[in-house]
Amino acid sequence: MLNAESLNAIFRPRSVAVIGASRREGAIGRVIFEKLLESDFNGPVFPVHPTATYVHSVKAYPSIKAVPDPVDLAVIAVKRDLVLNVVKECAEAGVKGLIVITAGFREVGEEGRKLENEILEVVRAHNMRMVGPNCMGVICTDPQVNLNATFAPAVPRRGHIGFVSQSGALGVTILEHAAKLNLGVSMFISIGNKADVAGNDVLDYWRNDPSVEVILMYLESFGRPQQFIRLAQDISRKKPIIIVKSGRTKSGARAASSHTGALAETDVLYDAMFQQCGIIRADTIEEMFDFAMGLANQPLPRGNRVAIITNAGGPGILAADACENLGLQLPRLSDEVQAKIRKQAAAEASLGNPVDLLAAATEEEFRHALSCVLQSDEVDAAIVIFVPPVVTDPIKVAHSVSRAMEGSDKPVMGCFMGVKGVASSIQELQRRGIPAYEFPESAAKTLRAMVDYAQWRSKTISPPVRFQVDRPAAAEIVEKAIAQKRSRLLDHEAFQMLRAYGFPIAETRIGRNWPEIRDAAREIGYPVVLKLSGEDILHKTELQAVRVNIQDEQALQREFDALYRIFENQTGRSDDVRFLVQEMAAGNREVMLGIHHNPKFGPMIAFGLGGVWVEVFRDVVFRFAPLSAEIAEEMVHSIRGAGILKGVRGEPSVDLPLLIESLQRLSQLALDFPQIRELDINPFIVSPAREHCKIVDVRILLQSATDKNV
Amino acid sequence: MLNAESLNAIFRPRSVAVIGASRREGAIGRVIFEKLLESDFNGPVFPVHPTATYVHSVKAYPSIKAVPDPVDLAVIAVKRDLVLNVVKECAEAGVKGLIVITAGFREVGEEGRKLENEILEVVRAHNMRMVGPNCMGVICTDPQVNLNATFAPAVPRRGHIGFVSQSGALGVTILEHAAKLNLGVSMFISIGNKADVAGNDVLDYWRNDPSVEVILMYLESFGRPQQFIRLAQDISRKKPIIIVKSGRTKSGARAASSHTGALAETDVLYDAMFQQCGIIRADTIEEMFDFAMGLANQPLPRGNRVAIITNAGGPGILAADACENLGLQLPRLSDEVQAKIRKQAAAEASLGNPVDLLAAATEEEFRHALSCVLQSDEVDAAIVIFVPPVVTDPIKVAHSVSRAMEGSDKPVMGCFMGVKGVASSIQELQRRGIPAYEFPESAAKTLRAMVDYAQWRSKTISPPVRFQVDRPAAAEIVEKAIAQKRSRLLDHEAFQMLRAYGFPIAETRIGRNWPEIRDAAREIGYPVVLKLSGEDILHKTELQAVRVNIQDEQALQREFDALYRIFENQTGRSDDVRFLVQEMAAGNREVMLGIHHNPKFGPMIAFGLGGVWVEVFRDVVFRFAPLSAEIAEEMVHSIRGAGILKGVRGEPSVDLPLLIESLQRLSQLALDFPQIRELDINPFIVSPAREHCKIVDVRILLQSATDKNV
Repeated sequence: MLNAESLNAIFRPRSVAVIGASRREGAIGRVIFEKLLESDFNGPVFPVHPTATYVHSVKAYPSIKAVPDPVDLAVIAVKRDLVLNVVKECAEAGVKGLIVITAGFREVGEEGRKLENEILEVVRAHNMRMVGPNCMGVICTDPQVNLNATFAPAVPRRGHIGFVSQSGALGVTILEHAAKLNLGVSMFISIGNKADVAGNDVLDYWRNDPSVEVILMYLESFGRPQQFIRLAQDISRKKPIIIVKSGRTKSGARAASSHTGALAETDVLYDAMFQQCGIIRADTIEEMFDFAMGLANQPLPRGNRVAIITNAGGPGILAADACENLGLQLPRLSDEVQAKIRKQAAAEASLGNPVDLLAAATEEEFRHALSCVLQSDEVDAAIVIFVPPVVTDPIKVAHSVSRAMEGSDKPVMGCFMGVKGVASSIQELQRRGIPAYEFPESAAKTLRAMVDYAQWRSKTISPPVRFQVDRPAAAEIVEKAIAQKRSRLLDHEAFQMLRAYGFPIAETRIGRNWPEIRDAAREIGYPVVLKLSGEDILHKTELQAVRVNIQDEQALQREFDALYRIFENQTGRSDDVRFLVQEMAAGNREVMLGIHHNPKFGPMIAFGLGGVWVEVFRDVVFRFAPLSAEIAEEMVHSIRGAGILKGVRGEPSVDLPLLIESLQRLSQLALDFPQIRELDINPFIVSPAREHCKIVDVRILLQSATDKNV
Repeated sequence: MLNAESLNAIFRPRSVAVIGASRREGAIGRVIFEKLLESDFNGPVFPVHPTATYVHSVKAYPSIKAVPDPVDLAVIAVKRDLVLNVVKECAEAGVKGLIVITAGFREVGEEGRKLENEILEVVRAHNMRMVGPNCMGVICTDPQVNLNATFAPAVPRRGHIGFVSQSGALGVTILEHAAKLNLGVSMFISIGNKADVAGNDVLDYWRNDPSVEVILMYLESFGRPQQFIRLAQDISRKKPIIIVKSGRTKSGARAASSHTGALAETDVLYDAMFQQCGIIRADTIEEMFDFAMGLANQPLPRGNRVAIITNAGGPGILAADACENLGLQLPRLSDEVQAKIRKQAAAEASLGNPVDLLAAATEEEFRHALSCVLQSDEVDAAIVIFVPPVVTDPIKVAHSVSRAMEGSDKPVMGCFMGVKGVASSIQELQRRGIPAYEFPESAAKTLRAMVDYAQWRSKTISPPVRFQVDRPAAAEIVEKAIAQKRSRLLDHEAFQMLRAYGFPIAETRIGRNWPEIRDAAREIGYPVVLKLSGEDILHKTELQAVRVNIQDEQALQREFDALYRIFENQTGRSDDVRFLVQEMAAGNREVMLGIHHNPKFGPMIAFGLGGVWVEVFRDVVFRFAPLSAEIAEEMVHSIRGAGILKGVRGEPSVDLPLLIESLQRLSQLALDFPQIRELDINPFIVSPAREHCKIVDVRILLQSATDKNV
């Protein structure tokens, strides 16, 4: 599907027609035509209008077919009901690319969706490409191109940021914001309804485009998440991708789907996806720009040690607080470095870190302190805070910061607080590529994002291991259940399935009556666990259908009687009862492992603390299959309750390598059997000794048919 | 100590002298003198300079004593080493209030601290009051006063905000920011080193000052937290207090203490304190202003239901996301309300909530939709988002918003995105008292803070209950331990202490040898628990010194032997061993209750899940004693793991009223015995049945002497 070459007709056209360019000032087609001329597009722009003979002093044509020269790109801003016909004419005229500005398609309901699909058919049939409909256009600042086919009032300066937005209105805001922050943009694409060209196409186009070094995306939905993951994993290794994904929550999702017709999806999928692709997720548009300022212009930090240089105590403390809250280190500077800084600092200045040069600090003192810090090997990045006192000129301080950075490969963030006289120094810093923020917290957050991204980039991800398993045995179980139209595997089938894939299972026998149960317990050896089993028995804990630590036969009989009564109460029948007799697992900690297979996103693997804890604390981590060993290991360590597994109060760690391996085996199982819709291993009883780590319960649901058991 | 009256000499003086006013332009004394004249201070301002006969064209005096008229306030901006003498002269001249701008005192070390103390002695001896040293002055915009005794470049307009800052540099920034946001300020006090006038004095002054309706504080330390709590609890009922407390984390605290000499304190104390006083904690200065914009001008919401009105889908989704993430509700508007809005909205507009009026929405459509929403009883607040399209004039939309709000008592937040043409409409909104933000997330956060504050204000807090307890018995135990210079109570003493205060304790006997233990177990009845006890045995879990669920005498003897060996290994001796034999508590869930008595802050009560969970998840809540029934109840419900206590998977709730009562009893114990430095009840085994709720372990440490056991 991806075909970067074909997008040149839209992103780097040699000639453009604006269909719907009108003489009425303020009309969107007219505005776009003017913008194209203003941006000094490198090629001819033809206005097309049914009656006007010229538009904005340029000869106009009654239809695209009347345009005498070949046209790469047609920008369409006509009434909705005319669009289909115009697209057909474009196809006939040999136009290669379309930008459809007009709205009123999929986003307004069924009729619009139909019309959009008809247009798309024409586009596909003629090998054209189309951005939109319902979009605000495309900008390419490449001097060979100079394309501004939008109606945005503000255009940012030329630079290395590629920005793609699913919302037109935010596009306007974003372009203005970028201009205000002096951020340089290479390309801007408003993808609107994504009928043809979607975020993935743009990503693919930018993959090898040297003019784009940092990618920003505002997205409300993902059409092909699995393709996105592959693309993003590759691109993130070379260029940072910063995303604002909205429609996170319930109402947000409701609005998103009424807005673009996108399906509501849960946010946890996105978090897993972004984590796994090295994507930097920004919570707000503001934060996206804060991050972009840092990533577009500064080198990546080699570690998380930060120095703060300030001429004011309070803001220095705020910055220090923000850094530490975000897990950045603020090492105390060594006596040597402090002595070096002291040579050009006030005697009372406190230099430990934050380096507080005091209110009277000159620009030269700033330059000297920053140089010393950047040259030392004690920190990986610096934040420079300046609050204008009566004496020092902020512009001079901005120059000093810039001079001190010469020859250094460490990132520096500026935070110039206050308004009077500071605005111009912030501009000065930004023009020199030094990120400048109004508040110290933004600088700290950006550094944190840069540290995370640098760490992700330096990680090696090995190819997923394939374990030797008994796949045919597992296949047989699944096929049998599907043949019998069962969407849930029976308990013993689920255990067999796991055993076939090499998971450690607690020894488990089925018993249907007292003699069978008694014999099973004798074979397994006391203490044992007794459980009710069967399709009727879903929430075992709620029903108190699990009896643990049964010490002897007498106790077993007691529990058998009790469970039998529960079974009768629950099912209303007294035959066809099934019990599981299980060895009593010796471990004292519990985890859960799971598969969740979303048809659009593919299979995800879950890991968390077991039992009821996962429900109450929601302490679960998800990652997409396939899992490399590194990702599996990261999963185990990244739950909040990891400390419990590693051991508290002197307790030894559980067998973490076994858990890591089990996650990888689960990943293999999920990929081998896409029929598995959901799998829950809960609890997996774990212990320091591998032989005591046992899965005691598992539930497997299949994708098939209608599910009565969910 | 508090004496609001005496502060009038500084905050509302009738005459001012500036000592250190010089002819050199840009000198701080000179700048302050000019600012006083510029602000048109309502009274005479006398420049004092040793040699100049006039300053800035005003007759100058060689010393304060030479000033012919009585002087209420002297602003001192002379060299540090001259300050003490100047203060003495002020005292002799009958000056009532001082603002000492000069720095170089406590904040730079021991010598400075000494000098500051000498100055303070003079101030106290002559019943003067002093703001500073090391501060940037005071502003009072009361038209009867018109005092600007600062060197800040920007002064905000007159209004109802009182602002107190412990950092001079942030003061400058803050005043500029307030001016930029059109926030009206009533008073601004830079308290610097707080030698005399501290935050509490200012709070007390504002308590009954009708010109101050919203209080903002930037603080790095609290001198008298208990006094602060009393003041804030009272004032918060009438006026919101918004605080940025910095120095939260390790480095932050290090910087704070090198900055103002304040002691590092842990952040959890502050969170508890602020929660309990209804204080609105802002994480950043930016957030403080966002909150202030809402609270200074808008009514408090009666609930948490929000409507979003927008002309752009994307920003509407971002706002909806932000609201829901913060726990605000976005109810779907009823068909009636939607039909009403529809009368003046585009046919394709999606009105469910967010109300998306589409890009072409006119100012009249905005006005109409906002009116409908505010008049309905379906929401408590509204966020209006406007992104400038090509057609509609943002200024007109700002007017429409303002008109729609007439007669409504619901808060409305504006979010006008973009830059071109929007800046002036933001100003317009702000001038009309409508908070206007650049990004929707800030509007949502502010509404959340307003909802929380409104809820706090409407809460009734009953007086703490006093339970009937055996205080003399507890006193005897404490006194005996102190007499014996023990800082830790013995296990049985600790249990007795709790029993005297009416806590449910698991039946517990001491045994020193096998026959004693055997007999104890027989008396208690099996199953029992066996534990090692004694001062040498601190971390029982680590040592595996607790054996539970012992079913019979044979098992008891086995465990006795095992524990005895552990005791020998641990202590290196084989005599003087002590065991606890305890009934086996029947509950299946665990909580912890505790006292932490900070000498400066007073006693705090802690509540959390018991066992190792509290360590790993840090799921604990703290509140200061005394606890009302409402606060105790709130504690129990506010831990993240509360669901476990309330019951998951059909399990019944544990006896929550008992926990709430126990917290109140603990509060009583903490206040009765300030000698208790730390108390840990962990675990308290709990169950749905009160008779099965039992405390099985407790540790009590006293404040006394040197602690060898901590």
